[in-house]
Amino acid sequence: MSIQTNVGNGLGIIVTIEGGKPGKTIGLRADFDALPITEEAEVPFRSKNEGVMHACGHDGHTAYLLVLADCINELKDSLSGTIKIIHQHAEETPPGGAKSMMESGALDELDAVFGIHLFPSHPAGVVGYRGGYSMAGRTYFKLAIKGVGGHGSSPHMANDAIVAGAHFVTAVQTVISRRLNPFDMGVVTIGSFDGKGSFNVIKDRIEIEGDVRYMTAETQQLIDKEIHRIVKGIETEFDVQCELTYVPDYPPLYNDPELTEFVKNSLESMNDKEIKKVVEFPVFSGSEDFSYYAEKIPGCFFYIGCKPKGVEKAYFNHHPKFDIDEDALLIASKSVAQVVCRFYEWN
Amino acid sequence: MSIQTNVGNGLGIIVTIEGGKPGKTIGLRADFDALPITEEAEVPFRSKNEGVMHACGHDGHTAYLLVLADCINELKDSLSGTIKIIHQHAEETPPGGAKSMMESGALDELDAVFGIHLFPSHPAGVVGYRGGYSMAGRTYFKLAIKGVGGHGSSPHMANDAIVAGAHFVTAVQTVISRRLNPFDMGVVTIGSFDGKGSFNVIKDRIEIEGDVRYMTAETQQLIDKEIHRIVKGIETEFDVQCELTYVPDYPPLYNDPELTEFVKNSLESMNDKEIKKVVEFPVFSGSEDFSYYAEKIPGCFFYIGCKPKGVEKAYFNHHPKFDIDEDALLIASKSVAQVVCRFYEWN
Amino acid sequence: MSIQTNVGNGLGIIVTIEGGKPGKTIGLRADFDALPITEEAEVPFRSKNEGVMHACGHDGHTAYLLVLADCINELKDSLSGTIKIIHQHAEETPPGGAKSMMESGALDELDAVFGIHLFPSHPAGVVGYRGGYSMAGRTYFKLAIKGVGGHGSSPHMANDAIVAGAHFVTAVQTVISRRLNPFDMGVVTIGSFDGKGSFNVIKDRIEIEGDVRYMTAETQQLIDKEIHRIVKGIETEFDVQCELTYVPDYPPLYNDPELTEFVKNSLESMNDKEIKKVVEFPVFSGSEDFSYYAEKIPGCFFYIGCKPKGVEKAYFNHHPKFDIDEDALLIASKSVAQVVCRFYEWN
Amino acid sequence: MSIQTNVGNGLGIIVTIEGGKPGKTIGLRADFDALPITEEAEVPFRSKNEGVMHACGHDGHTAYLLVLADCINELKDSLSGTIKIIHQHAEETPPGGAKSMMESGALDELDAVFGIHLFPSHPAGVVGYRGGYSMAGRTYFKLAIKGVGGHGSSPHMANDAIVAGAHFVTAVQTVISRRLNPFDMGVVTIGSFDGKGSFNVIKDRIEIEGDVRYMTAETQQLIDKEIHRIVKGIETEFDVQCELTYVPDYPPLYNDPELTEFVKNSLESMNDKEIKKVVEFPVFSGSEDFSYYAEKIPGCFFYIGCKPKGVEKAYFNHHPKFDIDEDALLIASKSVAQVVCRFYEWN
Repeated sequence: MSIQTNVGNGLGIIVTIEGGKPGKTIGLRADFDALPITEEAEVPFRSKNEGVMHACGHDGHTAYLLVLADCINELKDSLSGTIKIIHQHAEETPPGGAKSMMESGALDELDAVFGIHLFPSHPAGVVGYRGGYSMAGRTYFKLAIKGVGGHGSSPHMANDAIVAGAHFVTAVQTVISRRLNPFDMGVVTIGSFDGKGSFNVIKDRIEIEGDVRYMTAETQQLIDKEIHRIVKGIETEFDVQCELTYVPDYPPLYNDPELTEFVKNSLESMNDKEIKKVVEFPVFSGSEDFSYYAEKIPGCFFYIGCKPKGVEKAYFNHHPKFDIDEDALLIASKSVAQVVCRFYEWN
Repeated sequence: MSIQTNVGNGLGIIVTIEGGKPGKTIGLRADFDALPITEEAEVPFRSKNEGVMHACGHDGHTAYLLVLADCINELKDSLSGTIKIIHQHAEETPPGGAKSMMESGALDELDAVFGIHLFPSHPAGVVGYRGGYSMAGRTYFKLAIKGVGGHGSSPHMANDAIVAGAHFVTAVQTVISRRLNPFDMGVVTIGSFDGKGSFNVIKDRIEIEGDVRYMTAETQQLIDKEIHRIVKGIETEFDVQCELTYVPDYPPLYNDPELTEFVKNSLESMNDKEIKKVVEFPVFSGSEDFSYYAEKIPGCFFYIGCKPKGVEKAYFNHHPKFDIDEDALLIASKSVAQVVCRFYEWN
Repeated sequence: MSIQTNVGNGLGIIVTIEGGKPGKTIGLRADFDALPITEEAEVPFRSKNEGVMHACGHDGHTAYLLVLADCINELKDSLSGTIKIIHQHAEETPPGGAKSMMESGALDELDAVFGIHLFPSHPAGVVGYRGGYSMAGRTYFKLAIKGVGGHGSSPHMANDAIVAGAHFVTAVQTVISRRLNPFDMGVVTIGSFDGKGSFNVIKDRIEIEGDVRYMTAETQQLIDKEIHRIVKGIETEFDVQCELTYVPDYPPLYNDPELTEFVKNSLESMNDKEIKKVVEFPVFSGSEDFSYYAEKIPGCFFYIGCKPKGVEKAYFNHHPKFDIDEDALLIASKSVAQVVCRFYEWN
Repeated sequence: MSIQTNVGNGLGIIVTIEGGKPGKTIGLRADFDALPITEEAEVPFRSKNEGVMHACGHDGHTAYLLVLADCINELKDSLSGTIKIIHQHAEETPPGGAKSMMESGALDELDAVFGIHLFPSHPAGVVGYRGGYSMAGRTYFKLAIKGVGGHGSSPHMANDAIVAGAHFVTAVQTVISRRLNPFDMGVVTIGSFDGKGSFNVIKDRIEIEGDVRYMTAETQQLIDKEIHRIVKGIETEFDVQCELTYVPDYPPLYNDPELTEFVKNSLESMNDKEIKKVVEFPVFSGSEDFSYYAEKIPGCFFYIGCKPKGVEKAYFNHHPKFDIDEDALLIASKSVAQVVCRFYEWN
């Protein structure tokens, strides 16, 4: 067993467990980090730091993987391959710790990668999966439009950046309405149009900020290309200078279909009373930086139900009262262990 | 006296009357042509050709100038200069006979040029003038936008020319609302948006036709530049091919201010009972090809009231019942003669 | 066995086969009609009518159901229920013969309804299914915008219908880009913008025609409401009169999920060498008037592969060379028979 | 002589000088107030208050009128009528002191009203006039658009106020480009589009502020009506709540044409060496609250050249170095005195 620390931005940890015999290498990833939320849940493991809370269950991810890693380490002699335990930082902070973990090169030789997420939408005992594109990718952009300022009564002496910006907003709607395949998911939201000024002065500069969502790399590329094109067109059309900062964030999460089928079958074939149901989950519009691994390495990210017992409707991830049924941690361990064992045909 | 025929497109006539002494050269222009209108006025000189009529008074212009030219020719020995009598064809047909008359070079040496128009807005006895830009210039344009056709349910496989055209229409409004000096006159009208097709097929090609009006050469240039820019922007913005045919027609009519002041003063100083009032006229949004002369040569185009006697409100130019008070012809002759005499200080 | 003719617009036929014992009533529907296409396929059953062709396989639908109905009729004594054989006209012609068949009341007592379509995307032996919303619904609309005509140089004396229309086109994009759930399918295409006129005359009236597509009744209602709202807004905004003709056509096809699961299981449990594969099909953007039945009655419309033997890529439905592998007719009969038998637990 | 103080907002002063004989009543108005500018001109009468300066020459207006009033008062016995000396506050502060002076009723019986402005565009000795609409009117407006906020990835759960605002900006361009007579002056400037927010949150509320300019009451009414209509249309079109605050400010200044002709003739007929030239001035896009008087009472506001001697190009009104040739004060007094004398045929 070897431990690498300071991986990816200096915060990630990779523990390499080599088996007794050679074989494939897989990664098991858990994310550790917290959110700027003050915990309101009345739980024994309540956060001791005011304003900081594990509101997304990442502490659970860390916990289960520590236990599982320990078990694997004990049994490693009979393993025909290598397992990398990946404790990854900063999932919540764009562009995501996973990006720098991948860029570090420390995970180059992985043959497959697995991860899970706790979700209180289902009770402990339900495990969810979804093959293909499963969670949305996201891009942030900022468009500064520079015209020429002037007096409100003399538009011809100025060049109105607000009018150019308004035309950008109306034109960019066509990316979704006309360029996107109607069966594909895509969103372009202009969240900010910063053109505050004096009523009788023509604005020389405005700043627009936007949010782009998509479920596939193809849609990502399409929208990227179209927004760049529209900006270039607006620049000519209104004789303004446009500065576009376009920052793709987490890619869409792509679960390798064969690997997902393998995970599903592995879980369904478990003879374990606690794992009651293996169900296909819908796509989510949320994002997850596990997608950086799954972009390069066959990967499967799946879901562990963790709704607290006796609760009709649980507080969802990121809520100050978010809580989990701790049975889910055992189920996570067992599920991932089963996947690992079946992967190596290991008993 | 020498006569040139076949001037400018082969239809214009120029009669050159050289005076006994050398001096400046001036042009007196009348336009001859008719309109595709069937005359409804009950007058002795009613058109004998069904569907063709002198509905704009150009026959009156020709008549007065024939008489005046004859008088000048008789008295030419005492004249210190040269007078060119210009009978110009095709004023009503863009781009106007005046254009080819100027291009022929036959009028290169003119020092000044004068012309008049009969207007039934005022009775015979009123003469109107206006210095500077006085009648509108006009440009025709056609914009073909070519996208990619396709099935109505698959916008992403096509590229919708109608949407690009609609954005052109909304964007081109800003030429007048934001680029034009608010004290200047300018119009951009989209008179035709030819995008007829099947409801469930995405149009691959549309054709837009437009009409531009302006009172100055500066406005003409401004709008020309802006429309070209917007088209180029739309082309990039919507990834379409744009073909713009942009045809400036009659320029705005510019009456030389000093020459107009001279005409006004000359007319006001006449001691003639029939010329009762010399008034400043407003600008007109109509166009007149005398503007081609006045673009290059100091010129003054002025107005002769010709409202038929006993009529409350006359039928205006281009109406099938258009008629004139023939007294106006004598007043036109006298007025132009006075201008000529004062120009040469000739008695 | 009783036969009703002249059902629904006077063209549909319903044959009622009552079983020996009472029980549920199901409908089996085949559509008969042709398309205005001249057949180019070299087949023995080539159309004898120039310009009219069974290019969508509806003749195959009719053929298989005639055979199957005959079999059912022979065996009816052992049947515990009633089967209605529905030969429906005019599937290709909006609003679809199914609409009037339903409105006739003749199918009011059905407990379930089944139908199939031949598709040459797969070879004979493949049967396809899809639960839930499976084929798109469609709406046609026409929007007439009436402003006030006038001269191109005097926009203030007129009210430009083209400008109002262009703003409608840009605004209507927001229905898809901002009002629709990004995970839902919807299309609004403006296929026709009829605003042809003279370049220097302001248009008083334009006509826009559009095509709307959707996969669910909710999306249909959403788009319907939004387009009506935008039209009303444009009317006020530009002081024009809008006349909107909005004609929902075939609804989206909704296959009852439980019934579809039942169909899938029935087919998968067949022990028939010819039925080689039962596969889930994707959603289609095309439309089908079986949706009128399935709107009111639990229904399942499924797909029968019919790619001609020895062909790499078949001509698709509506192509002049469309052809089928006739083995598919037997497979259609067997598949529907199997569904009927399992429905009644009939052997 | 009677003095009214605390007129109009409690700051205006009206001095009534009744002549020896009855006759018409006229008002002579000077405005007194300053601007929040720190004076940089090196003059003996430099402002003693840091940050406050008579940068528009209103102190000159006050000075000349005090002297003139004194003279009139001395000679009043021979006057056939009544003269009201109007010292009006707050010309620089919308909605203008003149508004409240008029509303006070204290000026109800005026038969005519005169005022002057010092302009350093011309040297002392030049007096300018212009009949009809001569200075622009102005309106301020604020449009709050309220939609529904939401997450950037779920536009259908929100209602995007930025998109509605952008459509307002593009639509409002048509007021100038299509509704206004192309020969009339009008401006609609959106000076502020306050839609700053987070890039991934859909804005629930934006605020737009605008500036409207016009040269006639007709244009004012036209634009007012059109903006209100467009706002109402946008409200329906995008299902948002709009709150429009529309505050007409100074009306356009209308100089009674006959009275202006009278002023011009009176000045031209003066036999005074110091008044060298009486010229027609162009229209100004600036505003002036004298317009409130001239809206109700025949009025004439004219211009007194005051360019400092020895200066090529003067600092203009509102500049920190604004200065005047004090000879202009005497010329103002003489000019207004001449107008008053001619008005009463008084010597």
